Amino acid sequence: MKDDVFDVVVLGGGAGGVPAAIRAAQLGGRAAIIEERDLGGLCMNRGCIPFCHMSAAAAILGGLGLGKEMGLDVKGVSQDYATLLKRQTELISFMREGVKGLLGKNKVTIVQGKGKLTGKGKVEVNGDTLSYKNLILATGSAWIKPDFPGADLAGVITSDDLLEAKKLPKRFLLYGTSPWLVEIGQFLKRFGAEVALATDAKGLIVNENKTIRTRLTKAIKDQGITVLPRTGITELTKKKDGLHAALKVKDKVEKVVVDRVVVLKRGAFLEGLGLETVGLDAGKEYLMVNERMETSVKGVYAIGDLSAPEERHYSHGASSGGIIAAENAMGQYRSFNPKAIPRVLFTQPQVACVGLTSKEAKDAGHDGELLGVHIIGEGASEMIGQAVLAIQLEATLEELAQTAFPHPTLSEFLAEAARSALGRPIYIP
Amino acid sequence: MKDDVFDVVVLGGGAGGVPAAIRAAQLGGRAAIIEERDLGGLCMNRGCIPFCHMSAAAAILGGLGLGKEMGLDVKGVSQDYATLLKRQTELISFMREGVKGLLGKNKVTIVQGKGKLTGKGKVEVNGDTLSYKNLILATGSAWIKPDFPGADLAGVITSDDLLEAKKLPKRFLLYGTSPWLVEIGQFLKRFGAEVALATDAKGLIVNENKTIRTRLTKAIKDQGITVLPRTGITELTKKKDGLHAALKVKDKVEKVVVDRVVVLKRGAFLEGLGLETVGLDAGKEYLMVNERMETSVKGVYAIGDLSAPEERHYSHGASSGGIIAAENAMGQYRSFNPKAIPRVLFTQPQVACVGLTSKEAKDAGHDGELLGVHIIGEGASEMIGQAVLAIQLEATLEELAQTAFPHPTLSEFLAEAARSALGRPIYIP
Repeated sequence: MKDDVFDVVVLGGGAGGVPAAIRAAQLGGRAAIIEERDLGGLCMNRGCIPFCHMSAAAAILGGLGLGKEMGLDVKGVSQDYATLLKRQTELISFMREGVKGLLGKNKVTIVQGKGKLTGKGKVEVNGDTLSYKNLILATGSAWIKPDFPGADLAGVITSDDLLEAKKLPKRFLLYGTSPWLVEIGQFLKRFGAEVALATDAKGLIVNENKTIRTRLTKAIKDQGITVLPRTGITELTKKKDGLHAALKVKDKVEKVVVDRVVVLKRGAFLEGLGLETVGLDAGKEYLMVNERMETSVKGVYAIGDLSAPEERHYSHGASSGGIIAAENAMGQYRSFNPKAIPRVLFTQPQVACVGLTSKEAKDAGHDGELLGVHIIGEGASEMIGQAVLAIQLEATLEELAQTAFPHPTLSEFLAEAARSALGRPIYIP
Repeated sequence: MKDDVFDVVVLGGGAGGVPAAIRAAQLGGRAAIIEERDLGGLCMNRGCIPFCHMSAAAAILGGLGLGKEMGLDVKGVSQDYATLLKRQTELISFMREGVKGLLGKNKVTIVQGKGKLTGKGKVEVNGDTLSYKNLILATGSAWIKPDFPGADLAGVITSDDLLEAKKLPKRFLLYGTSPWLVEIGQFLKRFGAEVALATDAKGLIVNENKTIRTRLTKAIKDQGITVLPRTGITELTKKKDGLHAALKVKDKVEKVVVDRVVVLKRGAFLEGLGLETVGLDAGKEYLMVNERMETSVKGVYAIGDLSAPEERHYSHGASSGGIIAAENAMGQYRSFNPKAIPRVLFTQPQVACVGLTSKEAKDAGHDGELLGVHIIGEGASEMIGQAVLAIQLEATLEELAQTAFPHPTLSEFLAEAARSALGRPIYIP
């Protein structure tokens, strides 16, 4: 391996890196992928997959109310967190083997270890040096350690630790800016905990349309979850009855007593990669790339969380960017379309948005073309797929209005929403 | 009303007629809609809506098994059919009022009664005559009475009668060619009945891809439902222990004893409409129309079940055709695209297909364009929406392969299916 020159070396075997390496190999490139921990990355091992699995369980619990209205009366439900975790651990382990198989089938060299750039065209792993023509940086993101007094106490955790717990404690304070705040908070609530969500921001999912934000926040509160916007933790102390968190809520100081403080803030994983040896700046919030996913250094690409702010940390953005970077590295010319990357919350109600918000769209002023779609409610995460496709294909409202979606389904919303935007709804009162 | 000349008169207030009338009115036409029974037609009152509601209840029951794997152990579920029916009756009644409101808001004249053509430009209802410039025939379909000996016995019913039952009997034979056979059969099984599905055809959903047919049939059988292809009822007799049905299964004769025989066969509703007074032939299986939904008589359109064979009786086909007919009647030039009308079964697993089957596609031989999509599994009815849109927009496989569907969702299937069809799957082993 020492003397090999790879067409493409991918640093990081997560949701972005894996498809990047496979795509490079499919295009005839000699490809290697370097991963320090588990193949599949955050998404598969400690993110999307386990937490969507948990959300699915929460949704089954949430659906029992509807069942009751339909004459299906459930006598009682017992919840066993250990069984849930066991199932998802097995599922993830199965998926991880699957990723290994996919990489092998596509003849991608898997290198287990910590990769570090050591100058142009060189990555060092386990003492060996790999040579490359093109490099795709896909190291993702890492937890940002909080700096409030008491942040080092044992009860201050991240969502990673929830996945290790045998049993769930009873009282949680979730703190951060990640959209996961709501997903994980709702799951914990459904599994019997008291939950407060605190964020420095002026509210939940602040970058989305006002209607979506307002409805989500109301729904979350109605489910008995406390929402604390414009809130910081000023101090945390451990006492006999739990962790005492002093909160600055707007201008007031409040106190909550909990068993765990879950801090959910992530930033691009840039440190210790040797980025400076190829001329990249590791001191930025994240790496800047052009529409081809290429950094300021020719032949060095960056994808996924590494090249995006926290509100754009979505694994489908990483995988889409990864494939594009690989195709460009192999000599094609492909562009990333940030307008067509959806933003999804797997909550109940689900939230899914793609493209511009109403406010942004007003300024854009194109005529007839679909600019953005915003959904809150049952099935939003699936329904948004159509909108993603419509934006990707630059569909007009007229074309959407004429599409015969199957009845009765949620997917029909898109034709009617288009007709409504054209001023001629058929079914909206 | 007698002296009025309507731009568009719609005969039939169902899934096709209602949007047709509204669309005509939106385009500035004076529009009337004639309905003998309930607004909303079969779909809303005795079809899609009640049976999808029942399928939703069946799916909740089906989902409890997954919940158990996830550590959610349900102690016991009682099923109350009366509660289920009450809920859906209220739901339908609410929706029916909604349709009335929509028609009123769009200034469509609602005429309650049986309409009959009495020559060109004239329809008679309740002794009055309505004059029209354009007519949209939207009377839908009706049950076809079976002709086997014993077909008149009290236990021989249609699905309409199931919606009137206070309690469900225990043993059912479902007979016919409608896709509803499987949906209704599965619901009855989940609600505790013994179910056999018999069809003259060589199997279930005979026009779909072999893989889809085989998997659906296997799943249905695994759920304990008897499937009897190439089967006719030769005689039915009533005895003390139930209805004895003599069946001709391929070349053998079999007997089943059941409480109800549900016959599910529908044909275009053509009789008694006075079609011959405008020069249309009421003796055909269904009315022939051109791509603009116009019959052989200028200014007379026909939509929905009235202009389609039973395997194309889908309400979204009716509503899509209705809107197109209305637009053409009001002077636009619009065409119906049968390739983009999906075919959906709300079963578990769901089946949803759009466009050509593999066999048809091989003969078609276009290059790169998406010709057909066939799904069996959880969420198929929603997932097919994307495929409908892709076919409608004439998307290429390359465009689909490049779309960033949200992860982790079912909607991602379309990009990977496209990559797979292009010979370069990323995630399929």
